[in-house]
Amino acid sequence: MRTIDVCLSPDMMHLYPVVDHAVVVVDILRATSCMTTAFAYGIDTIAPFAKLEHCLAMKVNGFYTAGERDGKKVDGFDLGNSPFEYQDPKLKGAKIAFTTTNGTQAIVKSLGASEIIIGSFLNLTAVANHLKTLPQNILVVCAGWKGKFNLEDTLFAGALVEKLKGEVNPACDAPLAAQALYNQAKSNMVGFLSNSSHVKRLAKLNIHKDITFCLTEDTYSVVPVLRDNVLRKIN
Amino acid sequence: MRTIDVCLSPDMMHLYPVVDHAVVVVDILRATSCMTTAFAYGIDTIAPFAKLEHCLAMKVNGFYTAGERDGKKVDGFDLGNSPFEYQDPKLKGAKIAFTTTNGTQAIVKSLGASEIIIGSFLNLTAVANHLKTLPQNILVVCAGWKGKFNLEDTLFAGALVEKLKGEVNPACDAPLAAQALYNQAKSNMVGFLSNSSHVKRLAKLNIHKDITFCLTEDTYSVVPVLRDNVLRKIN
Repeated sequence: MRTIDVCLSPDMMHLYPVVDHAVVVVDILRATSCMTTAFAYGIDTIAPFAKLEHCLAMKVNGFYTAGERDGKKVDGFDLGNSPFEYQDPKLKGAKIAFTTTNGTQAIVKSLGASEIIIGSFLNLTAVANHLKTLPQNILVVCAGWKGKFNLEDTLFAGALVEKLKGEVNPACDAPLAAQALYNQAKSNMVGFLSNSSHVKRLAKLNIHKDITFCLTEDTYSVVPVLRDNVLRKIN
Repeated sequence: MRTIDVCLSPDMMHLYPVVDHAVVVVDILRATSCMTTAFAYGIDTIAPFAKLEHCLAMKVNGFYTAGERDGKKVDGFDLGNSPFEYQDPKLKGAKIAFTTTNGTQAIVKSLGASEIIIGSFLNLTAVANHLKTLPQNILVVCAGWKGKFNLEDTLFAGALVEKLKGEVNPACDAPLAAQALYNQAKSNMVGFLSNSSHVKRLAKLNIHKDITFCLTEDTYSVVPVLRDNVLRKIN
C-alpha cells in the first residue's frame, strides 16, 4: 500500500526524499488558502517566488505582485495575504507572482517531486480525491513558521491522513500525531487553535475573519498543481 | 512568566537557542529511561558519547560500555539499551560510558545550556519539581529517530508541559501540540503508541516489557544532570 508522510517543518526537508513523491504543500495561514481561493475565482497562473525582488521583477511581465512578510502585506505589492483579496472578479484570467514568509519557501524546497499540489482546508476533499488517483507515495510539507512547527498546517496534514485512511498508510509517527491532533480538533478548529502562537500572532493583525475562513473545509474544489514552475488548477 | 518550548527533533536544534536555558533531553525508548533507571540503582556516573569508538575508549578508564545502534546492543559492549539491565546491584557506584542512536546525540547538541537534565516518564514528576526550582526558560529536546519526529518523546514533552501548567507558559505551537497529544494518550499510553513506527520497530526486537516499563510514570525520583560533561544525579 502507498504511504503518506508528513514533514512538520521545511527545516526537516533534508530527511524526506521528494523524488517520485506527490508532495502537498500547506500553509494554512494563509498562503495556500489564498492560492486556493484565487484559483476558485478564476486566476490563470500563480508563479511562486522565495524572494521579494524576484516577485517584483515579474511586474514587467504583466503579473500582479502578491504576498507578505511577517504576516503583513509587502509595501508596493498589489495584493496581500488575505484570501478575501482574491475573491475579486478583476483577477479572472490574471497572472500573479506570489511570495510569503513560509509558504513559497516550502514549494521551493519541494522542487524535484513528481507532483507538487497546493493544499488547504478550503480544498481538502478535492486534494484527497486527486491524491487517490496518483500512484506515488505522498509527502505533506508543512510550511510552519520560520522553520518551526505550527499547529494549523499539522492539522491539515492530519485531515489528509484521515481522509486517505484505508487507502494510504502512515509512513511514520508524524502522520499519526497529525491525525490524532486533527481528530481532537476537528469539531472546533478555531477554538483548538485559539492558544496557538501563530494564531495569536495573526490575531494581533486583526484577521479573525481570515482565520475562520481558512479553517473551513471544502469551500472550493480546485486543485492547484505546479507545472513548469507555475501553479495552475487541474480541475 | 517563564516559558517552555519543545524541539521535536535534534535536526531542528539550530532554531532553538540553548544558552541560558534549562534543557531536558528525552529519549524514552530507551536511552533516557535506561539512564534514569541506572541512577535509581546507584550508578555513580554516566559519560554520554555520540560516537561508538569514544565510548569504547573509556573502558581503560574503568568505565562499563553501554548503548545501542539501531535499537540493538553493540557487539562487545557490556550493557545494551534495556532498562532492566541497569537494575543490577553490581553496577552500584559504577561508571558507564553510554552511546545511543539518538539520545546521546541530543545531549551533545544541547551543550551550552545552563542545565542539561535527563527526562523520562520514570522520573517525570521529579524532573518537573526540579524545573520549578530553576529560574531559566525550559527547552525539551526530543531525541526522535534519526532526525525525525517520534511520538513517545513528544508525549513526554507534553507531560512536562501539563505538569508545569500555570507556572510556565508554552512558548509556541510545539508544546501545545505535545500537551494535546499527551492528554489524549495518557489514559492508555501503550495503546496510543501501538501504531507508532518506533514502537513497531522495537516490537520486532521483542521488547514489549521494556516499552511498558518505559511508559510508566514516576517509578523513580532521581534527577540526572550533566556537570563537567558527565551525568550525575542531584537527588
